[in-house]
Amino acid sequence: MEPIYLDHAATTPLADEAREAMLPFLGAAWGNPSSVHRRGVAAREAVDRARAQVARAVGADPRRVVFTSGGTEANNLGVLGAARGARGDGAVWVGPTEHACVRAAAAALEREGLRVTRGALRVDGELDLDALDRALVPETRVVALMLVSNELGTIHPVSCVAALLRARGSRAHLHVDAVQALGKLPLSLEELGADTLALSAHKVGGPQGVGALVLARELELEPLLHGGGQEGGLRSGTENVAGIVGFGAAAERAAREQEDALRRLGELRTQLLAGLEPIEGVHPLVIGDPTRQQPGILALRVEGAPAEVWLHHLDARGVVVGAGSACQANKRELSPTFAAAGLDEQQARQVLRLSTAASTTPQEVERALATIDEVARELSRL
Amino acid sequence: MEPIYLDHAATTPLADEAREAMLPFLGAAWGNPSSVHRRGVAAREAVDRARAQVARAVGADPRRVVFTSGGTEANNLGVLGAARGARGDGAVWVGPTEHACVRAAAAALEREGLRVTRGALRVDGELDLDALDRALVPETRVVALMLVSNELGTIHPVSCVAALLRARGSRAHLHVDAVQALGKLPLSLEELGADTLALSAHKVGGPQGVGALVLARELELEPLLHGGGQEGGLRSGTENVAGIVGFGAAAERAAREQEDALRRLGELRTQLLAGLEPIEGVHPLVIGDPTRQQPGILALRVEGAPAEVWLHHLDARGVVVGAGSACQANKRELSPTFAAAGLDEQQARQVLRLSTAASTTPQEVERALATIDEVARELSRL
Repeated sequence: MEPIYLDHAATTPLADEAREAMLPFLGAAWGNPSSVHRRGVAAREAVDRARAQVARAVGADPRRVVFTSGGTEANNLGVLGAARGARGDGAVWVGPTEHACVRAAAAALEREGLRVTRGALRVDGELDLDALDRALVPETRVVALMLVSNELGTIHPVSCVAALLRARGSRAHLHVDAVQALGKLPLSLEELGADTLALSAHKVGGPQGVGALVLARELELEPLLHGGGQEGGLRSGTENVAGIVGFGAAAERAAREQEDALRRLGELRTQLLAGLEPIEGVHPLVIGDPTRQQPGILALRVEGAPAEVWLHHLDARGVVVGAGSACQANKRELSPTFAAAGLDEQQARQVLRLSTAASTTPQEVERALATIDEVARELSRL
Repeated sequence: MEPIYLDHAATTPLADEAREAMLPFLGAAWGNPSSVHRRGVAAREAVDRARAQVARAVGADPRRVVFTSGGTEANNLGVLGAARGARGDGAVWVGPTEHACVRAAAAALEREGLRVTRGALRVDGELDLDALDRALVPETRVVALMLVSNELGTIHPVSCVAALLRARGSRAHLHVDAVQALGKLPLSLEELGADTLALSAHKVGGPQGVGALVLARELELEPLLHGGGQEGGLRSGTENVAGIVGFGAAAERAAREQEDALRRLGELRTQLLAGLEPIEGVHPLVIGDPTRQQPGILALRVEGAPAEVWLHHLDARGVVVGAGSACQANKRELSPTFAAAGLDEQQARQVLRLSTAASTTPQEVERALATIDEVARELSRL
């Protein structure tokens, strides 16, 4: 039997639309968009069509879409590019549940002499806005807050933070990691009030190796990659034409189907929560307002064995889930997100993540629940 | 009639081997290599097979292959990563014909306070080794020299520079852009004596959006992209599995067919040079020892109109060529390579580049020569 894949937040299969859009550019339509001859012009036009598709998905100006090699580069460019672009003394604030790529970018800035403050969650699991307010200083260059926690699914109040920054007259650049939001939540750069938004293709049915940083307006960012001046000088390097075209198609589909996807993910979540309820030793970990969650992501605290042991037991029985964040997995470090959410070290080692797609079926969820129940019983006997 | 493509140094079509290797990873075999479950492990194994293929193509240890988003990122990581990784006062030396991505990386280091010296060509077109020797100082952190000029085809004496650095007891990191060498010249990291080697997939029949920095041994480089710690911590971000697998297949093919390719490219070059000889107003631009040229790249100085006008005339007649470097094209700037080669500004605007592949046929070259002759006559009449 085909395994049941409940790790869509780590990566999700390529959408048919994306594959079909890509294939010509892996075949007869190859070209370097920087070439001024016909092959180059055709490749350039394909990249610009994809740029318009990605822009539309987040309500942005196509000229402000900077294609990158993925979400990590997009987040790095948003945070490092804005912080390094500004001169003088500096400070940076990062949210309490940021992805490793935002945390590590902040750590790089710290080594470069900037002061970094990490946000906190309140006891109720909501972002501590008062602590952010206290942390803001005139020299704060960047405030980085993810829209959806990849580990917990919590939706953070980005537009509220934008309003706070405006109210405080802060000139800080607001960078938003929207990697786990695209295609799941309504997404408008303007409504969020963000200066930059990071997106990843392979989380929404596009290929791996492509992402975008979307800018609210023309911005002076210090590039990470220097060279031929592609992407308006903000990101040099020959464009990954096939990948970008695939991302465009996937972003268009994600935006078109977002409303349906949100509803479907909500139904699957309801089914999961109800089915998990009677299983002993398995506790949904919902941090913050339960109505402000990206419903495709559900963290669980599991007893009886560390999350990784659980994961392998489930995997052996044909149910594929995540443990914390895939990106964290090679480091064998505990994610600070769990500490921010009030878990102690032992509890943090017990977090599994189930992440569904709109294509996940109720039958798959049912089978997954039965398997989780089996594993829970087995591990409790050990 | 299908246009004749003589711009393979800008980008070359995806090899069948690469496409076939990639398709499963754009289909059923998707997975995030950082995931510890079965899908993740399978993706990780595919990436590691490609790592071994790329390593073998340059005689390196697979553990020392760092996949990047392309040649630009590989060159940036080699230059910036080595220069930033070192502490204290610093200087950098870059070759006289470096690609924009190496020159721009050096310019970024200059803004960060390092001293940058640019190499020179002697009157005979050879690298001025004495000038390099004079430029070396104890605090020289990086010496960056491309193996093959993308604009001229000139092969630079990298192993000679490596010997010079050893003789001087220099601790400078030797970074080599080998983007236009892979698959055309025998390529051994050890024989070159380089510390790092930059490669690009789409110049050798792999996909766009993938490249590699190959290290001669374990090295402390400051990463450009921070995050999940992929690629041994030197390059974070979810791996572009399909792209990497395609690169692996293309690199294996490039290495296997390198000897044949070199011979074929030499034959095509001989045919081109003989056919161009009688055409008035078209002058092959061979800089340095004519026996030390990558034969797939032939620059021409054309009279009667700027290179871009020539390019469009040829394009309209079904012959696709490059003007200088594609990566330079969007900037409308003159490449400093041509100044280094002794051209004045007007001459530098007259450079076309013909670049062949082993798959280019003598019939195509013949047709291209006839078309160049036509355009030369037409433009001389204007």
